[in-house]
Amino acid sequence: MTVAERIEQSITRHFMTVFPFTTNHHDTLFGGKAMALMDETAFMCATRFCRKTLVTVSSDRIDFKKAIPSGSMIEAIAEVIHVGRTSIKVRVDIFLEDMYVDGRELAISGVFSFVAIGEDKKPTPVLENLGVEEFS
Amino acid sequence: MTVAERIEQSITRHFMTVFPFTTNHHDTLFGGKAMALMDETAFMCATRFCRKTLVTVSSDRIDFKKAIPSGSMIEAIAEVIHVGRTSIKVRVDIFLEDMYVDGRELAISGVFSFVAIGEDKKPTPVLENLGVEEFS
Amino acid sequence: MTVAERIEQSITRHFMTVFPFTTNHHDTLFGGKAMALMDETAFMCATRFCRKTLVTVSSDRIDFKKAIPSGSMIEAIAEVIHVGRTSIKVRVDIFLEDMYVDGRELAISGVFSFVAIGEDKKPTPVLENLGVEEFS
Amino acid sequence: MTVAERIEQSITRHFMTVFPFTTNHHDTLFGGKAMALMDETAFMCATRFCRKTLVTVSSDRIDFKKAIPSGSMIEAIAEVIHVGRTSIKVRVDIFLEDMYVDGRELAISGVFSFVAIGEDKKPTPVLENLGVEEFS
Amino acid sequence: MTVAERIEQSITRHFMTVFPFTTNHHDTLFGGKAMALMDETAFMCATRFCRKTLVTVSSDRIDFKKAIPSGSMIEAIAEVIHVGRTSIKVRVDIFLEDMYVDGRELAISGVFSFVAIGEDKKPTPVLENLGVEEFS
Amino acid sequence: MTVAERIEQSITRHFMTVFPFTTNHHDTLFGGKAMALMDETAFMCATRFCRKTLVTVSSDRIDFKKAIPSGSMIEAIAEVIHVGRTSIKVRVDIFLEDMYVDGRELAISGVFSFVAIGEDKKPTPVLENLGVEEFS
Repeated sequence: MTVAERIEQSITRHFMTVFPFTTNHHDTLFGGKAMALMDETAFMCATRFCRKTLVTVSSDRIDFKKAIPSGSMIEAIAEVIHVGRTSIKVRVDIFLEDMYVDGRELAISGVFSFVAIGEDKKPTPVLENLGVEEFS
Repeated sequence: MTVAERIEQSITRHFMTVFPFTTNHHDTLFGGKAMALMDETAFMCATRFCRKTLVTVSSDRIDFKKAIPSGSMIEAIAEVIHVGRTSIKVRVDIFLEDMYVDGRELAISGVFSFVAIGEDKKPTPVLENLGVEEFS
Repeated sequence: MTVAERIEQSITRHFMTVFPFTTNHHDTLFGGKAMALMDETAFMCATRFCRKTLVTVSSDRIDFKKAIPSGSMIEAIAEVIHVGRTSIKVRVDIFLEDMYVDGRELAISGVFSFVAIGEDKKPTPVLENLGVEEFS
Repeated sequence: MTVAERIEQSITRHFMTVFPFTTNHHDTLFGGKAMALMDETAFMCATRFCRKTLVTVSSDRIDFKKAIPSGSMIEAIAEVIHVGRTSIKVRVDIFLEDMYVDGRELAISGVFSFVAIGEDKKPTPVLENLGVEEFS
Repeated sequence: MTVAERIEQSITRHFMTVFPFTTNHHDTLFGGKAMALMDETAFMCATRFCRKTLVTVSSDRIDFKKAIPSGSMIEAIAEVIHVGRTSIKVRVDIFLEDMYVDGRELAISGVFSFVAIGEDKKPTPVLENLGVEEFS
Repeated sequence: MTVAERIEQSITRHFMTVFPFTTNHHDTLFGGKAMALMDETAFMCATRFCRKTLVTVSSDRIDFKKAIPSGSMIEAIAEVIHVGRTSIKVRVDIFLEDMYVDGRELAISGVFSFVAIGEDKKPTPVLENLGVEEFS
């Protein structure tokens, strides 16, 4: 597989219903809950890309442009957007769907950075042992 | 959209990591947790297909052929397989991926049946108001 | 103890209140939540019957004949109904009680099958070392 | 029904497995988790006795004489022990069972007091409208 | 540090919002949930005071004088009030704040007792190895 | 009260133990869980500052410089750092404490922005009706 094929294959999707108990008093999803979902989906995506132990090193600025109301459904879709020597960047988009109306719209986007960690607890090359060529 | 296009578009995916706290003392996912995940994914799929209020009416026999170990990842994929007048059948497959090895295998399959409920709390036609032709 | 006495003694009960956060948008308990509760109660019942490590191998078809509204109470009662050489079948009934009215009714029934697993991870006789006679 | 029959019929049982994620760093159930379970089981028992809205007014001193290890099973059994005009006392015993060994022992006992609340949010007689005679 | 300084420094605070899903049908926080929060905050306070493994041995009588409504905020504040040879008593106060109005009031108080446990699983002196003088 | 006094009084603290079930497979707290905790603590702080309905509008870049191991304790401390006309910025620091060793260190910092929303669902002045003078 090429890196592009690995990226395609590691796209990770997570559909969920926004239940009342995950929302704040304005009846919309807590920003923090969305961030946790984004980190977890990004983490699975990055792990599936490189099959190595990863830790989150940073999240870029996240804008919550659109409130996500209780009773709607959301899908988080995570995709690798940059592969460094020992690090990976993953973008996660959260799409919002009304439960009873067709269509969807982008609600939140974020970028998370991960570093691959070896057994010595030090950064290790992301692409090692994957059978793909290193970037040149 | 045709019914086939609605089916294609309502396929619903839910990736998750099997954390230790969802597993039994044999360190594998509880059968019941898998069933809950399957019902919820099927429910979202069926709702996205017909955009109506639905209730689960039955689950067919489910065989747990493959234990799902703690520390692995699973993806539930739900797809509508039968559309009746007021009911929908959805099949859910759970695929198992090792966190650190490429590849996946089918672990559990199940079929869930839902009925669409109108405001009068009685069964209502699944395809009504969707702009698709009724089955003849 | 005889097998009949072990069955009597391993009956397992689990009372719970159906809180709003366990219900769907029709304000009734999710089918999948009921299935998870049934599997867990059945699992405890089967374990208490044979005191061995067990895994769920299948659930029979389950009909959700009666919606369980938010704010009611339910009791799951699990009882061993068949003892094979290395497997056990447990029936679980879920009874529904209104919080403020006497009486109850049967809402859901299901049958779960378990297999006893030895230290070699292979099926092991259910009745071994229990001081009861094997079935003949 | 007599009061004695109502007491008998409102005994409430809740079996659960002590999963690792409910335990502290000494690998035993948190005292606070046991208290929450006791209050909830007592609450259901008292509600089932009088079928009225109740609030917890106090818990008597609770001694945690026996640690409850992760991987064991416990059963909370709640029973009404005193009926006042507008209040009820419920005793809850938590019994401890090893998952793989027959037998059980009493681990924790507690007494919880509840008051029945009417629609005017004021204390209301516990036995009103139950078809049993008031205490004299 | 003196014992008084250790007490000052180990005061432990935990602010939380009372979400609907933690409340009973009277829309107020379950007594048992408050007790679990109190035990956990007391446990962290006592641990931070002596930096030893602790188990809860008892809770004194707790009066729930004030209902805590859904949608309010509470702060649990835990402070060591007695240091024995191998045991510690911690008082926890829960203060209630309306989300949209300044001010607060005391809602619940409780006292929890802990014992320090050594590697031999037996009680061990609370103040050992802390660089403070034993009580005389 | 002055704005400075309101800031001082709205500092919000949340102590918690990092339980195994909140950690990833590297046995450290998920980045996303830390973000959710930070958002929630910041939300309570900002609400207590202005006593108005708030929604999260953005989180600035967050660096996870220090892994937070399972079995440690953390304290999130949130403080208002900027008050705009209809928005508030809150910084949250997460401090890490070993359960059995004195001392702490800063593990993660983040800044969250909120907007106050009126009954018309539009931005509303943060300081209105607080009895403090508007910024000039």
